[in-house]
Amino acid sequence: MNSLDKLTGYFEHFPGIGARQARRFAFHILTMQKEESLELASLISSIKDNVIECASCRRFFSKSGGTADVCDICMDINRDRGKLLVVERDTDIRSIERSGVYDGLYFVLGGTVPLLESRENNKLRGGGLKRVVEARLAEDLSEVILGFSINPDGENTGRFVEAVLKEIPGSDKLKISHLGRGLSTGSELEYADPETLKNALQNRY
Amino acid sequence: MNSLDKLTGYFEHFPGIGARQARRFAFHILTMQKEESLELASLISSIKDNVIECASCRRFFSKSGGTADVCDICMDINRDRGKLLVVERDTDIRSIERSGVYDGLYFVLGGTVPLLESRENNKLRGGGLKRVVEARLAEDLSEVILGFSINPDGENTGRFVEAVLKEIPGSDKLKISHLGRGLSTGSELEYADPETLKNALQNRY
Amino acid sequence: MNSLDKLTGYFEHFPGIGARQARRFAFHILTMQKEESLELASLISSIKDNVIECASCRRFFSKSGGTADVCDICMDINRDRGKLLVVERDTDIRSIERSGVYDGLYFVLGGTVPLLESRENNKLRGGGLKRVVEARLAEDLSEVILGFSINPDGENTGRFVEAVLKEIPGSDKLKISHLGRGLSTGSELEYADPETLKNALQNRY
Amino acid sequence: MNSLDKLTGYFEHFPGIGARQARRFAFHILTMQKEESLELASLISSIKDNVIECASCRRFFSKSGGTADVCDICMDINRDRGKLLVVERDTDIRSIERSGVYDGLYFVLGGTVPLLESRENNKLRGGGLKRVVEARLAEDLSEVILGFSINPDGENTGRFVEAVLKEIPGSDKLKISHLGRGLSTGSELEYADPETLKNALQNRY
Repeated sequence: MNSLDKLTGYFEHFPGIGARQARRFAFHILTMQKEESLELASLISSIKDNVIECASCRRFFSKSGGTADVCDICMDINRDRGKLLVVERDTDIRSIERSGVYDGLYFVLGGTVPLLESRENNKLRGGGLKRVVEARLAEDLSEVILGFSINPDGENTGRFVEAVLKEIPGSDKLKISHLGRGLSTGSELEYADPETLKNALQNRY
Repeated sequence: MNSLDKLTGYFEHFPGIGARQARRFAFHILTMQKEESLELASLISSIKDNVIECASCRRFFSKSGGTADVCDICMDINRDRGKLLVVERDTDIRSIERSGVYDGLYFVLGGTVPLLESRENNKLRGGGLKRVVEARLAEDLSEVILGFSINPDGENTGRFVEAVLKEIPGSDKLKISHLGRGLSTGSELEYADPETLKNALQNRY
Repeated sequence: MNSLDKLTGYFEHFPGIGARQARRFAFHILTMQKEESLELASLISSIKDNVIECASCRRFFSKSGGTADVCDICMDINRDRGKLLVVERDTDIRSIERSGVYDGLYFVLGGTVPLLESRENNKLRGGGLKRVVEARLAEDLSEVILGFSINPDGENTGRFVEAVLKEIPGSDKLKISHLGRGLSTGSELEYADPETLKNALQNRY
Repeated sequence: MNSLDKLTGYFEHFPGIGARQARRFAFHILTMQKEESLELASLISSIKDNVIECASCRRFFSKSGGTADVCDICMDINRDRGKLLVVERDTDIRSIERSGVYDGLYFVLGGTVPLLESRENNKLRGGGLKRVVEARLAEDLSEVILGFSINPDGENTGRFVEAVLKEIPGSDKLKISHLGRGLSTGSELEYADPETLKNALQNRY
C-alpha cells in the first residue's frame, strides 16, 4: 500500500468520514503549503503532550505550559463546588459552557451504557466517578446531576450511574437529579411525542 | 383551461403540494374506480355539513347525525373543566389526545400572531377565547394553559393571549401557565440550544 | 368511521401521501370556500367523462366538447408518423413535449415490467401496443423508440416490448431504437457510474 | 490560541468540514494510540516527498522508491497513446480507471474555468496541456477528448481548452471530441431536463 492509500486509510477512521471524502482529504494535504502541512503534522504528533485529561473531571484541556493536572474549570474557585454534572462527552461541556447557564463542576463519563450490551464499556469511567464523588462528599458536594441523552441508552446510563453512586458510603445525603424535560426550542405540539407532551404538561409553569 | 388543468390547479393549493405532484393527483383521480371517485366527490361536497366547528372549543368535529353544536370532548363530563389548554391548531389536539396525558378542555386559537406582522390575523379567535373564558370563569375554570410552539411566533402568540385574558374582569383569580420546557425525547446535550439547556438545568428534578 | 376519517382515508391513497398530510388535506377542504369545494367535488366526479384515454396513444386528454376519441397529438398532421416513442407514463409525454425535441407520435405503455415479477401486470398495454404497431406498419411507421427508465425495470420493459414487436408480421422492416445514453445535465465524471462512463466514451462526438 | 484550537482550525479547512466536525476530528486525534498519531503525522509531513505530480499527465502518484517523474499510467506501453482525455481533477481519473472503459492517456487540467470569472485561475494548467499536446502531436496523438462536467463551468472550460488547442501548429489534424450525452443510469424521462432529452433522442441507437 502506497503512502497516499495509507494516509487515506487514516482519514477513513475519522468520525463520519467515508472512502471518497478520506481521499479528498489526502489530496487536500497534497495541495497544502509545505510549512502548513508540517505544522499540522507537528500538532498531531504533539497534541497528546499538550492536551491532557483533567485528573478531576476527565475532560481534555490544554496544559499551556502550566504544570497543573487539573483543568481551569475544576480549579475555578468561583464555581459552585456543591454541584457535579455528569455528562457523556467533552463536547457536552462545551455546549453548556457556551450557554453560560451552569456554574457547578463536571465529570465526563466517556460514553453511554448501551441498553442491549451485556457488559460495561471499558472506556467508561464509572470507577473514576465513584472516587471523585467519594472525595467530594467529604467536602461540599451535595448534588449530582445526570446529564445524559434523552434516549434509551442515555436512560440506561442514568440507571448505571445511580447504582454506582448508591454504593458510596454516605450517598443517602447526596441529591441525585435529572435534567428537566419538556418542549425544547423549536418544538410544535403537533409533532411532539407523548413522553415530551406529558413532561411539558407536568412541568408547566 | 381544460378540466384536467383545473383539477390540477385545485390540488396545487393543497398544503405542501407542488405542480408536479398536483398533476399526479389528477391522474390518480382518473385511474380511480368510478364509484370511488364519486364517493370522494360526495365527501368533499358534504364534509362542511357533517363536520362542524365546535361552538365551545372551535375544533372541527363530526356531527354524526346528532344535533349538538358542541364536540364530544367539550361534552365529556369526566374531563377536568378547571383547565383550558389553548392551542394553535386542531392537529395539536389530536397529538395531545393520542398521548392521553391531558384531561382538561381545549380552545383552538386558529393560528399564531406572527412577530413581525402589524395587525391581528382575522382568522384568529381572540374574541371567541375571551367570551369562552368569561363564561367559564363564572363556573369552574381556574387555569388557562398556553400551548403554543416554542418559537418567536408562538411566544408572541402567548403574549397576545395573555393580554386578551387580562382584559377579562376577575381574571386575577385565573392562573395562566405555560407548557414546561427542557430536553425533549431524543435530545443530546451537545446539540441543545442555550435556552433549552437553561430550562433543563432550572427544571431539573 | 366518520366522514372526516373517510375523507382522510381517500387522501391517504393519493400518491406519496401519508396519514398526517392526508388529515391536513381534509382540514384544507374544511376551510375552503363552499363554492370552491363544490367545484372541486364536481371536477372529481366528472373528470372521467371529460378526460378520456386516447384510442391511439392511450394518454389521457380533455375532450373539450369534441367527439373525437383520439388526442390532439395523434391527430396533428404535422407530426412525423414514421416514429413511435413508447413511454411508461402520461407524465413522460408532458416532459418531452415541454422540451420540444420530438415531433413523432407516442404510445403510453402504462407502467413497467418489473424484473422480479413473474407475470405481466394486467394494466400494461402490450396487446394495445401490438395492435397499434400492426396498423401503423401498413401505413408509414418505420421506427419504434423505446423510452423507458434507465434502470433494471426499464430495461426489462424494453426486452418485453421488443419481444411483443418481434411477433408482428413484417416487423423485420421496423427499426427498434433506444434512447441515447451518456452523461446527463449536471453530471460530474467523479460521480458517474461505470455504465454511464462507458456510454459517454463510446458515444463521444 | 491553544494547540487544540489550532488543530481544530486546520481541520476546518479540510474540504466539506465545519467547526463542529473539525473539533470532533481533534478529539479523535487525542484518543488515537500514540504510535498511530505519530504515523499519521509522519505521513502528512512526508506525503509531498513520496507523492508527486506526474510530469506528463499531472496527476499525483506515489514514487514508491522509484526515480521516475512520470506515473504508471503514462508509462504503460499497452495504453492507446493516440487518445488524451482531459479531466478536471485527479479523482475523475480514479472513477474512469475503476470503470475500466478507457485505455488512452489522461491530462489533469486542475479545475474549471468558471463562467463568470474574468481571468484564468492560475492553478489551471492550460500552458502545460499545450506543451504536452504539442509534444505528443509529433508522435502518435490523434484525438483529445474533453471530459468536463456537464454544467456551465464545465462547458466554459471546454471552450477554453478548445481555444488553447487551436493555437497549436498542426492542430487541424487533431480530432477534438466531447463525452457523449444522454440519459445516465437511473434517469427517468419524467424528470429529465430538455437538453438531456434532446441528446437522448438525437443519440438514439
